[in-house]
Amino acid sequence: MSVERSIALIGDFYRQIHAVGAAPISIGGDHTVPLPVLRAIAGDRPAGLIQIDSHADTFDDFMGTKYNHATFVRRAVEEGLLDPERVIQIGLRGTRYGDDDTDYGKQVGLRMVTMDEYEDMGRAGVIAEIRRVVADGPTYVTIDIDGLDPKDAPGTGVPEPGGIMMRDAQMILRRLTGLDIVGGDICEVVPALDPTGITCINAANLMFELTCLAAVAIDRRRT
Amino acid sequence: MSVERSIALIGDFYRQIHAVGAAPISIGGDHTVPLPVLRAIAGDRPAGLIQIDSHADTFDDFMGTKYNHATFVRRAVEEGLLDPERVIQIGLRGTRYGDDDTDYGKQVGLRMVTMDEYEDMGRAGVIAEIRRVVADGPTYVTIDIDGLDPKDAPGTGVPEPGGIMMRDAQMILRRLTGLDIVGGDICEVVPALDPTGITCINAANLMFELTCLAAVAIDRRRT
Amino acid sequence: MSVERSIALIGDFYRQIHAVGAAPISIGGDHTVPLPVLRAIAGDRPAGLIQIDSHADTFDDFMGTKYNHATFVRRAVEEGLLDPERVIQIGLRGTRYGDDDTDYGKQVGLRMVTMDEYEDMGRAGVIAEIRRVVADGPTYVTIDIDGLDPKDAPGTGVPEPGGIMMRDAQMILRRLTGLDIVGGDICEVVPALDPTGITCINAANLMFELTCLAAVAIDRRRT
Amino acid sequence: MSVERSIALIGDFYRQIHAVGAAPISIGGDHTVPLPVLRAIAGDRPAGLIQIDSHADTFDDFMGTKYNHATFVRRAVEEGLLDPERVIQIGLRGTRYGDDDTDYGKQVGLRMVTMDEYEDMGRAGVIAEIRRVVADGPTYVTIDIDGLDPKDAPGTGVPEPGGIMMRDAQMILRRLTGLDIVGGDICEVVPALDPTGITCINAANLMFELTCLAAVAIDRRRT
Amino acid sequence: MSVERSIALIGDFYRQIHAVGAAPISIGGDHTVPLPVLRAIAGDRPAGLIQIDSHADTFDDFMGTKYNHATFVRRAVEEGLLDPERVIQIGLRGTRYGDDDTDYGKQVGLRMVTMDEYEDMGRAGVIAEIRRVVADGPTYVTIDIDGLDPKDAPGTGVPEPGGIMMRDAQMILRRLTGLDIVGGDICEVVPALDPTGITCINAANLMFELTCLAAVAIDRRRT
Amino acid sequence: MSVERSIALIGDFYRQIHAVGAAPISIGGDHTVPLPVLRAIAGDRPAGLIQIDSHADTFDDFMGTKYNHATFVRRAVEEGLLDPERVIQIGLRGTRYGDDDTDYGKQVGLRMVTMDEYEDMGRAGVIAEIRRVVADGPTYVTIDIDGLDPKDAPGTGVPEPGGIMMRDAQMILRRLTGLDIVGGDICEVVPALDPTGITCINAANLMFELTCLAAVAIDRRRT
Repeated sequence: MSVERSIALIGDFYRQIHAVGAAPISIGGDHTVPLPVLRAIAGDRPAGLIQIDSHADTFDDFMGTKYNHATFVRRAVEEGLLDPERVIQIGLRGTRYGDDDTDYGKQVGLRMVTMDEYEDMGRAGVIAEIRRVVADGPTYVTIDIDGLDPKDAPGTGVPEPGGIMMRDAQMILRRLTGLDIVGGDICEVVPALDPTGITCINAANLMFELTCLAAVAIDRRRT
Repeated sequence: MSVERSIALIGDFYRQIHAVGAAPISIGGDHTVPLPVLRAIAGDRPAGLIQIDSHADTFDDFMGTKYNHATFVRRAVEEGLLDPERVIQIGLRGTRYGDDDTDYGKQVGLRMVTMDEYEDMGRAGVIAEIRRVVADGPTYVTIDIDGLDPKDAPGTGVPEPGGIMMRDAQMILRRLTGLDIVGGDICEVVPALDPTGITCINAANLMFELTCLAAVAIDRRRT
Repeated sequence: MSVERSIALIGDFYRQIHAVGAAPISIGGDHTVPLPVLRAIAGDRPAGLIQIDSHADTFDDFMGTKYNHATFVRRAVEEGLLDPERVIQIGLRGTRYGDDDTDYGKQVGLRMVTMDEYEDMGRAGVIAEIRRVVADGPTYVTIDIDGLDPKDAPGTGVPEPGGIMMRDAQMILRRLTGLDIVGGDICEVVPALDPTGITCINAANLMFELTCLAAVAIDRRRT
Repeated sequence: MSVERSIALIGDFYRQIHAVGAAPISIGGDHTVPLPVLRAIAGDRPAGLIQIDSHADTFDDFMGTKYNHATFVRRAVEEGLLDPERVIQIGLRGTRYGDDDTDYGKQVGLRMVTMDEYEDMGRAGVIAEIRRVVADGPTYVTIDIDGLDPKDAPGTGVPEPGGIMMRDAQMILRRLTGLDIVGGDICEVVPALDPTGITCINAANLMFELTCLAAVAIDRRRT
Repeated sequence: MSVERSIALIGDFYRQIHAVGAAPISIGGDHTVPLPVLRAIAGDRPAGLIQIDSHADTFDDFMGTKYNHATFVRRAVEEGLLDPERVIQIGLRGTRYGDDDTDYGKQVGLRMVTMDEYEDMGRAGVIAEIRRVVADGPTYVTIDIDGLDPKDAPGTGVPEPGGIMMRDAQMILRRLTGLDIVGGDICEVVPALDPTGITCINAANLMFELTCLAAVAIDRRRT
Repeated sequence: MSVERSIALIGDFYRQIHAVGAAPISIGGDHTVPLPVLRAIAGDRPAGLIQIDSHADTFDDFMGTKYNHATFVRRAVEEGLLDPERVIQIGLRGTRYGDDDTDYGKQVGLRMVTMDEYEDMGRAGVIAEIRRVVADGPTYVTIDIDGLDPKDAPGTGVPEPGGIMMRDAQMILRRLTGLDIVGGDICEVVPALDPTGITCINAANLMFELTCLAAVAIDRRRT
C-alpha cells in the first residue's frame, strides 16, 4: 500500500538525519508526516509533544484507514514514540465526527487545550502550561497550520473558524526557548488554496521560529 | 416592480415554513431578505432583533427606493414586525451618507452599539446587553456578514474596516443559548468576491451556530 | 539616474502644493516617497514624524544605493527635515539584514516601538507615547502598509507576520486629533498582490482618517 | 429616480466634451453608459454603431425598467441617435431570456453577427462586413467586455463562454482605421472579479486601440 | 472500504433515476463517478462512450487501488457496461506514468484521439469521427474538465497544458444532437482552485449543453 | 553594484555546469539571467538564439542602466556570445518606449517575427523559419513567459495582450527536436501574480519540453 510505503521511506530518510545529531525541521505535506519522523528520532526514548492544531488527530481510524492525518498522535502513543503525559494539544475546536478522539486523549492523559480554555488561560497561561507539561525532557513541536485562525491561514484543507492568531503563535514559540527541542514540523499548508500568499508567509515565519528553538536546544545539548 | 414582487414571493414561501412550526435559518442574498421572512414569522407578534451589522439599515429611502438592504429594519418596525424596544444592533461603524438612519433609531428606541462602545463594553458586556434587551420574548437573529471585520469577510459588497472578529461572533452566538430564537439569517455573502473562501467558511460556521440556537429554542417551546 | 530624478520631480510638485498652504496626503508608491514630500514641506522647519511601519527605514545604504524605501528616514534626518527627538516608529519587527538601522536610531534618538513593546504598552499607552514624543510641533504621518499585520494588508512587497491590527491603526490615528499635522502618506500598497482587495480597502480607510486629521490641523492653524 | 438622473448628468458632461470637438473614449461602468454619450454626440445626426458584445442589449424592458444595460441600443434607435441600418453587433451568444431583443433587431434592420456566423465568416470576413455596414458615416464603437471569451475577460458581471479571442478583438479594431469614429467606450469591466488582472489589462489595451482610431478620425475630419 | 461503499451507494441512487426513464446528467466529483452511473443505466445493454479528457483513465490500478479516477473506463469495459468498439476518447495528452493505459485501449479497440490527432482532423473531422464511432446505439457522455485547456479550466486537480478550447467543446457537444444520449457527467471541477470562477462557468455551460442533448434524445425515444 | 555582482556570480556557477558537459535549463528570475548563462556556455563559440518573447530586449540602456531584462540580447551580441545572423525572436508586440530596440535588431540582422507576421506565416511556417535561421549550429532557447498570451501567463511583470497560445508554444518546441540545443531558460514567471497557478503550470511544462530537447541534443553530440 502506498501510504505505508511512503511512511517507511520517510522514516528511513529521517533516520539518516537523526544519526548525525541534527534536529529535523520539516514542512509538509499532510499531518501524517510526524509519525515517520518520530519513529526516526524518538525510537530510543519517548518524546514530549507540543501540538498546535484545531484537531486532536487521535482517532483510531479515519475513513477506513489507520495511518493518516487524523490518527498520527494515537499511533505514535501506541508505538511508544510519545510519552502521553508529556503531550499538550493547543487550539482544539471545530465540528466533530465523533468523540473517539478526545475520549482516547482523556484515557491516556493528553493535555488538551480547547480554544475556550485557551482564551480563559490567556497567552501567558498557555505558555506556562506548555512548559509545565513537557518540562525538561526531549520534545517535538508539530504545527498543523489549521491551528491558526483561517484569516491567518486560509490555504489549508480543513480550515476551522475561531482559532489562534498568528502573533500569538509566534510569541508562544519564542517563549519556548530553552526547552529540549528535538525536531518540529509545519504541516497542511496548501499553496494552491492560498491566493494571497499569507499562509505560506506565516508558515515560513513559524518555521524560522522553530529553527531558532532547535538551534538553541542543539547548542545546549552539546555543552 | 421586481423587488416588491420578489419580497412577496419570499414571504409566501416562508409562511409555509412557519406554518409547520419550523424556525427558518436563511442565507442571503441581500439584506432585504429578513423583511419578508419577518412578515411570515412575526406577523402575529412583534419580534425582538439581534442584528450583527456595520450599518443600521434604518434609512427611510436609499438611492430612491423604499425596500432595499439599507431600509429593512425601519420598514419592519413600521409594519409592526419588530418591537423597537427589543432591537439591538452590534458593530455599527463606517463612513455615513447621512444621519437619518441613526436619528430614526434613537427616536424609536433601538439599542445601537457602535464599535467604539463594543470595545468599551467587552465581549462579555455585549452578551449581557443583548440578553437584557431581547429578554425572554421571541427573537430573530440577522447577521450582515459585513458586521465582521473585512479580514474575516472580504467577500461582501460594502466591507467596513475595523469590525467584529470571527471568534467573537462565534462566542456571542453561543452565549445566546436559551433565548427564544424564532429564526435567523446571514446575508450579503458574495462568493465571487471571496477568492480565499474565508467568507463562505465563516458564514457557514455562523449558520451552524444559528441552527443550534434555533434547535434548542424549538425544543424548549415544545416542552 | 532615474530615482534621483524622480525624487526631484516629486519634490518640485509638492512645493507647489505647500505654497498654497495645503497639507498633502499622498498614496504611494514605494516608501521613498516621503523624502521629497518632506523636502517640500519641512524645508523651513524640521518636522516630527509618526511612522507606522514594520521596518525602521534607517539603513545607510540598501543593496548599494542611498535613496530608497529602506533609507528615507535616515536621509531626512541627515538633511534636517526631521527632528530626531520628535520621531516615533511603531510596529517594528521582522527578520533583519543587520543592526545598522536600529543602531542609527538609537544614536540620533528616534523613539523605536517594537511589536513586543507595543503589546506591553497597550493601545492607549502607545497613543500617549506618540503624543508625548511629537508634542505640539508640526508633525508628518507616514504609514508603510506593511506595518499592519499581513491579514490586514497582504498586498505589499515585504509582509511581516505579527503586526498591528487594522482596528488599532484606525483608533491610533483618530486619537491624534488636535496634533499639528502637516501632511501624511500611505505607501507600499501593491494592488496586483491583493486579490481580495482588503489591502486597498484598509489603505483607503486610513487615508480618510489622515485627511480628517489634516483638515482639523489646517483649521486650527487658520484660527 | 437615480438611474435617470445619472443618465442626465452624464449626458450634460459629454455635451461639454462634444462641444470642443473631441471624440470621447470612455470606460464604464455598466452598459447603460453609451446612451447618454450618444445623446451628447449623436443628437444632430444619427451615428452608426460597431458593438462587440455577447448580448444585443435590445430588450424593451429588463427586470421592470426601461433604462439599463440590456436596453440601451433599443433606446438609442428609438431616440434617433443610431441609424439602425448602420448598426452591427458582433459576438452574440449565450442563454437567452426571450426573443424580444433579436426580434426587435430584425425588425429595425440591425446587422446581428452571432458567434456561429462569426466563425463561418472568419476574422477578415467580419472586418469586411463591419466596413460595409457602417461605411463612411460617423460611427461609434462600444465594447461590452463580455463580448470577449471569459478566459480573456473573467472580470465581468455576465460572462458568456465561447466568445471572441482578445487577439481577434485587437486586430478587428486595428483594421477599422480610417472609419469616421466619433467616440467609443469599454463597459462592464469589474476589477473586483478580476484577481489575475487580465480583464483590466485587456480592457486598457482595447482602449488604447480605440484612442488610436479616434485620433486618426479627428485628424481626418480636420483636414 | 469507503470508496467501494460510496460507489455502491451512488449506484443505488442512480438505479432509481434510471427506473423512471430519466437520463441522468451529473456533476462531480472525481472521475470515478461515471462507473456507478454506468452500472445503473448500462447494466442491461453496453453503452457507447464519448469521453472528453486529457487522460484515458484505463490503468489497471493506480497508486495501489483498483477503483479510482484513473481506472474507471477499464473497469466499465471489464464489467460489460461499455462496448469498447463504441468508445471514443478526445483530447488525450500530458506526461504519462506508464503505457499500461493506452496499451489496454489499443488491445480492446478504444478510439483514442490525442491532441495531435485532434489538431490534424480539425473540429469538423472530430465531430464526424465521434458520430461514426458511437453511431446509433445508446451513448453516455463523460467530460473530465481537464480535457479543456487550463486557461478554460484552471480549477481542477491535474491540469494539462495544450488542451481543447471551450468554444470547440461547446460546438462538439451541440453537433451531437440526435445521438441516443442516455446520460452524461462533468467531473473533476474544484471550485477552491478556481479564483476567477471560469472553470465553474464553463462547466455549468457544458452541463447545459449536455442537458439539451439528453432532452432531445429522451424526446426521440418516446416517439 | 549589486546587479553586476549577481551576473558575475551566476556566470561562475554556470561555468561549472558547462565544464562537465551539461546543457543547463534554467528558470528565472528576470530576463537578465540568460546573459551570464551565455557567457558561461557560449564563450568559445557564438550561439544561435531562439527567443519567444513579446519584447526584443535589445535596448542600449533601459531606465538608466545597461544590464537588465530589456537589454540582454544586445549585450550578448556585443560580447560576441550570440551570432546575430542566427538569432530569431518570436512573438514581438505591444506598446513601445522607442525604436532603438528594433532599429538595432535590423542593423545587426536579427530575425524579428512580430505577432502580425507570426499569424501570416502560421505555426508550421514559423517552425520552418526557426530551423532555417539557426540551422545546425549550437543554439540556445530563451523563453520570456510574456511571449505567451496573458490568458496563458497572467503571472508576469509586463503582460502584453494578443500573444502566442500555449498549445502553439508546446508544438513549436517539440518540432525543434534534432537541433543542437546547448541550453535554455524560462524567465519572468512571478508566482505571486498567478492566483490560478496557470503561469507556473505552463512554465513547468515548457521547461519539460526544453529538457527533452536538450537531452536529445546531448545524446547526439555524444554519438
